[in-house]
Amino acid sequence: MAKTNNDEQFKNVISHAKEYGFVFQSSEIYDGLSAVYDYGQLGAELKNNIKTYWWKSMVQLHENIVGIDSAIFMHPKVWKASGHVDGFSDPMIDNKDSKKRYRADQLLEDKIARYEKDGKTDKAAQLQADMDQALKDENLPQLKVLIEQHEIACPVSGTKNWTDVRQFNLMFSTQFGAMAEGAEEVYLRPETAQGIFVNFLNVQKSGRMKIPFGIAQIGKAFRNEVIARQFIMRMREFEQMEMQFFVRPGEEMKWYAYWKEARLKWHTALGTDPAKYKYHDHAKLAHYANAAVDIEFEFPFGFKEVEGIHSRTDFDLSQHQEFSGKKMQYFDNDLNEEGKPYGNYIPYVIETSIGLDRMFLLTMIGAFEEQDLSEGEKTDSRIVLHLHPCLAPIKVAILPLTKKDGLPEKAKEIMDLLKFDHSVVYEEKDSIGKRYRRQDAIGTPFCLTIDHQTLEDQTVTIRHRDSMEQQRIEIKDLEELISSKVSWKNLLRKL
Amino acid sequence: MAKTNNDEQFKNVISHAKEYGFVFQSSEIYDGLSAVYDYGQLGAELKNNIKTYWWKSMVQLHENIVGIDSAIFMHPKVWKASGHVDGFSDPMIDNKDSKKRYRADQLLEDKIARYEKDGKTDKAAQLQADMDQALKDENLPQLKVLIEQHEIACPVSGTKNWTDVRQFNLMFSTQFGAMAEGAEEVYLRPETAQGIFVNFLNVQKSGRMKIPFGIAQIGKAFRNEVIARQFIMRMREFEQMEMQFFVRPGEEMKWYAYWKEARLKWHTALGTDPAKYKYHDHAKLAHYANAAVDIEFEFPFGFKEVEGIHSRTDFDLSQHQEFSGKKMQYFDNDLNEEGKPYGNYIPYVIETSIGLDRMFLLTMIGAFEEQDLSEGEKTDSRIVLHLHPCLAPIKVAILPLTKKDGLPEKAKEIMDLLKFDHSVVYEEKDSIGKRYRRQDAIGTPFCLTIDHQTLEDQTVTIRHRDSMEQQRIEIKDLEELISSKVSWKNLLRKL
Repeated sequence: MAKTNNDEQFKNVISHAKEYGFVFQSSEIYDGLSAVYDYGQLGAELKNNIKTYWWKSMVQLHENIVGIDSAIFMHPKVWKASGHVDGFSDPMIDNKDSKKRYRADQLLEDKIARYEKDGKTDKAAQLQADMDQALKDENLPQLKVLIEQHEIACPVSGTKNWTDVRQFNLMFSTQFGAMAEGAEEVYLRPETAQGIFVNFLNVQKSGRMKIPFGIAQIGKAFRNEVIARQFIMRMREFEQMEMQFFVRPGEEMKWYAYWKEARLKWHTALGTDPAKYKYHDHAKLAHYANAAVDIEFEFPFGFKEVEGIHSRTDFDLSQHQEFSGKKMQYFDNDLNEEGKPYGNYIPYVIETSIGLDRMFLLTMIGAFEEQDLSEGEKTDSRIVLHLHPCLAPIKVAILPLTKKDGLPEKAKEIMDLLKFDHSVVYEEKDSIGKRYRRQDAIGTPFCLTIDHQTLEDQTVTIRHRDSMEQQRIEIKDLEELISSKVSWKNLLRKL
Repeated sequence: MAKTNNDEQFKNVISHAKEYGFVFQSSEIYDGLSAVYDYGQLGAELKNNIKTYWWKSMVQLHENIVGIDSAIFMHPKVWKASGHVDGFSDPMIDNKDSKKRYRADQLLEDKIARYEKDGKTDKAAQLQADMDQALKDENLPQLKVLIEQHEIACPVSGTKNWTDVRQFNLMFSTQFGAMAEGAEEVYLRPETAQGIFVNFLNVQKSGRMKIPFGIAQIGKAFRNEVIARQFIMRMREFEQMEMQFFVRPGEEMKWYAYWKEARLKWHTALGTDPAKYKYHDHAKLAHYANAAVDIEFEFPFGFKEVEGIHSRTDFDLSQHQEFSGKKMQYFDNDLNEEGKPYGNYIPYVIETSIGLDRMFLLTMIGAFEEQDLSEGEKTDSRIVLHLHPCLAPIKVAILPLTKKDGLPEKAKEIMDLLKFDHSVVYEEKDSIGKRYRRQDAIGTPFCLTIDHQTLEDQTVTIRHRDSMEQQRIEIKDLEELISSKVSWKNLLRKL
């Protein structure tokens, strides 16, 4: 089999995800909804397993981290305090003829790329510098000047008939309540982090938490992305797994280093090739951060961020203190006992923030293999998902060799033995070979074949997904063998 | 201790939920957001455990049920097809002086109640009949006539200066995308069920499902309730656990009976008093149903719906077939082989739909006890949450008797032994008695006390939450004892 290139591999993963029920386009029967996807019957299981892995490793394994589940709707002032109402926007420009809207910087980026392609490197460099300056100055009229100077036309209408550049906020808003005078405008949260910050006092007090401690959360967030792309990489509705770790001011760099290392370890413990991961330090820091790094993964379309670790200082809690008028301070009794003068302070925060959907995509891509099984003249191949057994949607497939002679009944017996502990499926259609391949394609680590010998000696054939090795095993030993491979315990111990 | 009345008990549960980190008001530091709540560090765990119980019992235990996770955003046509755009609304009326908006039928209901209180039963009956007729006819002007005839005044302004009655849709809407000409209006789903129906074909085909089969889903839904009330009973943002079971036309009543029984069993298997549950058959059926029953629970404010089982006929799939132009049919090969003429059909659907937040509230209320422990002259009491061990947020509390003599170190050793399998906490502050009470209050089934004897003979004291009994147990036997009580297997076997 010829080695597929990256583009092709990505396409294959996408169509595989659809074919086997991992990911469907949202509302597909209505021709879909742009940049929104649904998780199918296997995708939902895989996604749940990734969540479980994160939650267990964060909350269950750390005695000083607790998890919460805050609502998507929050008080509108939260987004004033966080800076999202004023600052979470893209510069947009409309073409008056096509009525199409574009990100102004994207139009300029495209032009720069074209200059470079045409060998006009000087022009490209100059436009890049001019654009960077305009973006830095938040000079929207200047962005329009650049678009006009470089004679950029609308790809649809072909004209240069542009409106002014305006800021377009990425938050979705809706009308809340039913007041006659006009309802209150609320936003769908663009990140889960603020749900943690506004609950800082409630959790710290009711949970009697002592610094350093963390609050973790998994939940949906929403961004009205203008240009959504690359399958589930950038969606309008997505899910985040975020943890905010509250520390003493001055100790944040120690914890930043700790979480930077701990989070990469979480990824590599799953068995994905470590060479596919790298750190990317932010050259330019956000206004709230004093250190920031991305964990990037090598997707078929290049290294891209999967997770961010950010030292957010006391920015968020200070903002909420200012906007809510509530003291967001922690009384550090240990410091107090040491006689230090700063027993009361606003904690500093280290954030770890991972995109669940990106992690899902990473997992599919990292696990996907089109394997050449040809021997001599005989060509053969299979698609196999080398998922970590803890993440596999189905742990065991139970396959009677034939549909008769009491084999299905025996198979169901074994199913009843395992189904209370594990996610199992039963399949009796098609040849055993075909059934093995179908389970390989969805990442099932174990297939059990029930044959006539089973009825005689209470053994079954267990087939291993990755090695395709088969061994004969007594039914009574099944539970222990399977549990040893799929139990969370063994994965969590690696962290 | 005097027996508290229902109102008081409900208030106690609410304040307990806040005090111990189960449920907080959303954005509380900003004085809250009406009818929205956040789950705190213990609430998130309890909620997750309820989800796990539902998912395992539905998906893992039924080989013909699979789970999906569809997006909150769906194509707007979905809600046209489902009837929500045109029919999911309340009749509202505004008072022009106070600018307050009311549900017209609610104003009339209040008047009827007042007539009854005043002994004017004839007037009450007449108004009831007139209102029912107007609602049946969807005659909005007539509702206004009734409000005027019965001289209903605004409770705020005291005037009878009313606008016309208008329909107010309960769906939240938002603007999607960034088209210059005006963005597309999309809705936040008001129920998760439609995410299952629009994926019917995708799941059936990619999962090779054979009828009868079910699709399950857990997810957020949103309704712009005008009158939200009773804590987390009726929220604007809430979570549903829904399963749609697709069956042959004509076989729906058999499956309706099956699910009616199976779902009640799911509730009672948790150990909640069965007398607190009852069925409530719908006297008046929704336009899409040919049978419907609620499972009601006796809350402190009366019997209320927790779960609905509905025979939805082929209404939803037929509507989607009509609106999408895609055939929503199933080819029933078994029927075909029997030579029956109707091998191709739109399946009928039995739905089971449970409100996760209501289930959470039910669980808290069912588990909550203020227990009198007085003996003779000595008065004593405790608050205990008799949660099923599988649902308890924390399974084991590990408590060194003192902070010295190596007891904390030994306690941490035991923690390391258990923490990979169970959610455990470590507590060393306060007396053992106080620590036991704190664990009782959050429903922790087991407390382990590490004392000096532990260092000598490798035993600990295990204390049982409900009975308060204590026994000495060897450390090596802990895992087995605890697992036998908190493992899902034993709970699932009861179903």
